[in-house]
Amino acid sequence: MFQKILIANRGEIAVRIIRACREMGIKTVAVYSEADRDALHAQLADEAVCIGPAAASESYLNMERILSATIATKAEAIHPGFGFLSENSKFVEMCEKCNVTFIGPSAAVINKMGNKSEARRTMMEAGVPVVPGTKEPVYTVEEALQEAEKIGFPIMIKASSGGGGKGMRIAESREDFRENFSTAQRESVNAFADNTMYLERYVGRPRHIEVQIIGDRLGNVVQLGERDCSIQRRHQKMIEESPSCAITKELRRIMGETAVRAAKAVGYESAGTIEFLLDGNGEFFFMEMNTRIQVEHPVTEFVSGVDLVKEQIRVAAGLPLSVKQEDFCMRGHAIECRINAENPAKNFMPCPGVIEYLHVPGGNGVRIDTAVYNGYQIPPNYDSMIMKVIVHDKDRAGAIAKMRSTLGEVIIEGVQTNLDFQYDILNQKDFLDGNVTTHFIEEHYE
Amino acid sequence: MFQKILIANRGEIAVRIIRACREMGIKTVAVYSEADRDALHAQLADEAVCIGPAAASESYLNMERILSATIATKAEAIHPGFGFLSENSKFVEMCEKCNVTFIGPSAAVINKMGNKSEARRTMMEAGVPVVPGTKEPVYTVEEALQEAEKIGFPIMIKASSGGGGKGMRIAESREDFRENFSTAQRESVNAFADNTMYLERYVGRPRHIEVQIIGDRLGNVVQLGERDCSIQRRHQKMIEESPSCAITKELRRIMGETAVRAAKAVGYESAGTIEFLLDGNGEFFFMEMNTRIQVEHPVTEFVSGVDLVKEQIRVAAGLPLSVKQEDFCMRGHAIECRINAENPAKNFMPCPGVIEYLHVPGGNGVRIDTAVYNGYQIPPNYDSMIMKVIVHDKDRAGAIAKMRSTLGEVIIEGVQTNLDFQYDILNQKDFLDGNVTTHFIEEHYE
Repeated sequence: MFQKILIANRGEIAVRIIRACREMGIKTVAVYSEADRDALHAQLADEAVCIGPAAASESYLNMERILSATIATKAEAIHPGFGFLSENSKFVEMCEKCNVTFIGPSAAVINKMGNKSEARRTMMEAGVPVVPGTKEPVYTVEEALQEAEKIGFPIMIKASSGGGGKGMRIAESREDFRENFSTAQRESVNAFADNTMYLERYVGRPRHIEVQIIGDRLGNVVQLGERDCSIQRRHQKMIEESPSCAITKELRRIMGETAVRAAKAVGYESAGTIEFLLDGNGEFFFMEMNTRIQVEHPVTEFVSGVDLVKEQIRVAAGLPLSVKQEDFCMRGHAIECRINAENPAKNFMPCPGVIEYLHVPGGNGVRIDTAVYNGYQIPPNYDSMIMKVIVHDKDRAGAIAKMRSTLGEVIIEGVQTNLDFQYDILNQKDFLDGNVTTHFIEEHYE
Repeated sequence: MFQKILIANRGEIAVRIIRACREMGIKTVAVYSEADRDALHAQLADEAVCIGPAAASESYLNMERILSATIATKAEAIHPGFGFLSENSKFVEMCEKCNVTFIGPSAAVINKMGNKSEARRTMMEAGVPVVPGTKEPVYTVEEALQEAEKIGFPIMIKASSGGGGKGMRIAESREDFRENFSTAQRESVNAFADNTMYLERYVGRPRHIEVQIIGDRLGNVVQLGERDCSIQRRHQKMIEESPSCAITKELRRIMGETAVRAAKAVGYESAGTIEFLLDGNGEFFFMEMNTRIQVEHPVTEFVSGVDLVKEQIRVAAGLPLSVKQEDFCMRGHAIECRINAENPAKNFMPCPGVIEYLHVPGGNGVRIDTAVYNGYQIPPNYDSMIMKVIVHDKDRAGAIAKMRSTLGEVIIEGVQTNLDFQYDILNQKDFLDGNVTTHFIEEHYE
């Protein structure tokens, strides 16, 4: 087992990882930017190294400085957390060259799953359902329309080089296909100088369902059930739960097995997530794979009883998984709410500042993951998430009631947060009925 | 189900019960003394009624005032928590007369188990092992010695009216029996004007093992495994864990079945605990039954996944238990440390005062039950316990490591606490080895 690990992250996930290490008897090194001198993660670690100015590009994204700190402190491994360098294959390769263990999958796997079309092809080969679409690029309206007729309407028209919504259109029927295709292609040519297009079936009113997997170097892959992360604002998750009330026992088995097959197809090790779209007919499609620990991993920890970060560390050290598929069972229901320092009424604008008074509730089935404290100054340089409230109860109704009760006890004075907004979602009839899709927020609030 | 419940208690257990009610959609009424005007439980409840001066006898023990508050607020039931009126059969009878449901067992059961010799007789009849001893009272040295020879040495000599160590002696052998018997009897006569004595086998170096049971009005009784509460200071528990590392699977089954038999023998309903002494040979003896929720109930909640307070409320409303014996399984290992505002170096003298800075850690498998907050003034009138830190991990070693890590993060400024003392216990080799008895503190510290 490692003697010392450097945590290349900040905030609650850095604290989360430091705690896991301490419980395993592993020394920790924190890195912090100049804006994070008073950060909790820097205080909790055994050692802390300043790696540069506030801007993430100069600190938490600066590979050379992080590796220098690792070598200087004689840490043997780096845990990247999520975000920052966690899915950067170049950094993984640099770690390898420096003889430092990267706690996560190999650079090759990160690359393979990071490239959208390669990931899609790999999954199709592994028998994982993907959203039906063109197998080869299309360039003209006529050939595109022919393909579209095969796939069916409504249909997504996408530019291969597209991103941020540019070069993307939905055609409701064959009647409006030509016009939408031409517009999307024109956008792509203008923005990316590329007229390569592809088509995908439009999945209407989907749920975001993801399956947690964890693999070791001995080829074992275990799936730990699904999370329903349909409640999103501008493609960012707000509320996550496990299990999903839309998933039957049989569908859970099938999706779980599919996720394991997907992971094994790329020789996956460490913790990872296979994200699916689930449509109203119970059909599911591979969306993407996240090759890191995720923000919402605690809901899985609550229902499975497995500590995912400790498992990551174990398998990175070459040990086998400590959990077997046949031992996995889900107990109860868990929900996570992400508490952000932001103003939901002003398009979720971040609101950093000083936490003048903090009261954090506890009790049965309540888990709080945070790196803030009384008097803490939230720097404006990073993500606005300041706390995760996670609850566990016997069933979904119990967990929702517990979350409402718990959020009602949180006191954060000095900065604006989305606490009231979260509370409101938990009182929406559609949410209580489990009637949610990824469009929930825009349909109920915007 | 009840619409409104009055909580006849204060501190963390009142907060615990208020949360359970809120999660069940039940309105709550808090009662508070003049010393508890700023108490958290009074702030969290839907209504709060002041019931008198600081002295518990004038407030939390004042049955008439509590019942008046119940009737005035139209609460249908009273949850007594632990301590105060929780095992007072007269109060239970008064509740009945006022048509208020007491959330706990009947007055008859409380009486039966509260009377030491009647409880012992009831248990013997139910086939529950008790510490071998005299069946009839003894009065003279000679008859006592005859009985002592049958029971064996070392032996406990106890006054029937005894208490607080008065009228109690251990005789190591027949040689020192006469002298010890005479001393004990003389003490009893002087203190209680009663020369009635009895003898019990002395259980050397025992563990305190208790089994959690819960029963409903339909005659169902379920046991939820054991807690090991051997770490005590002056007969007050400090650290509790579940499961006990001294209990084999087979012994767990036997003790569990014995506890269910004991509970069924008295027609027990609500949550209760059968306390046993376990000697070094794996033999166990009934000590007493606690007819209430206990301070250490969270460790059982962590491993069983059952919310004991919610079950109490359910069964008091006449509903069946929501847990079946065959569904019960223990997951992982849980430990609780009681954090007291006290000075361990000065014989655990209470140290009330103002909490000037409070930082409460969280994270995976960490539960904090407390009613204190930043700036809270601990009144000097009540128990010194201010916080319970409960952790849950895969196994005992993991739970101990997590507890050390968690205690290390707690910051309580302004009052002295036993945090460092608890931390020290968690680093004692005997504790780590699971080599503990009820004499642990005196053997290692006094």
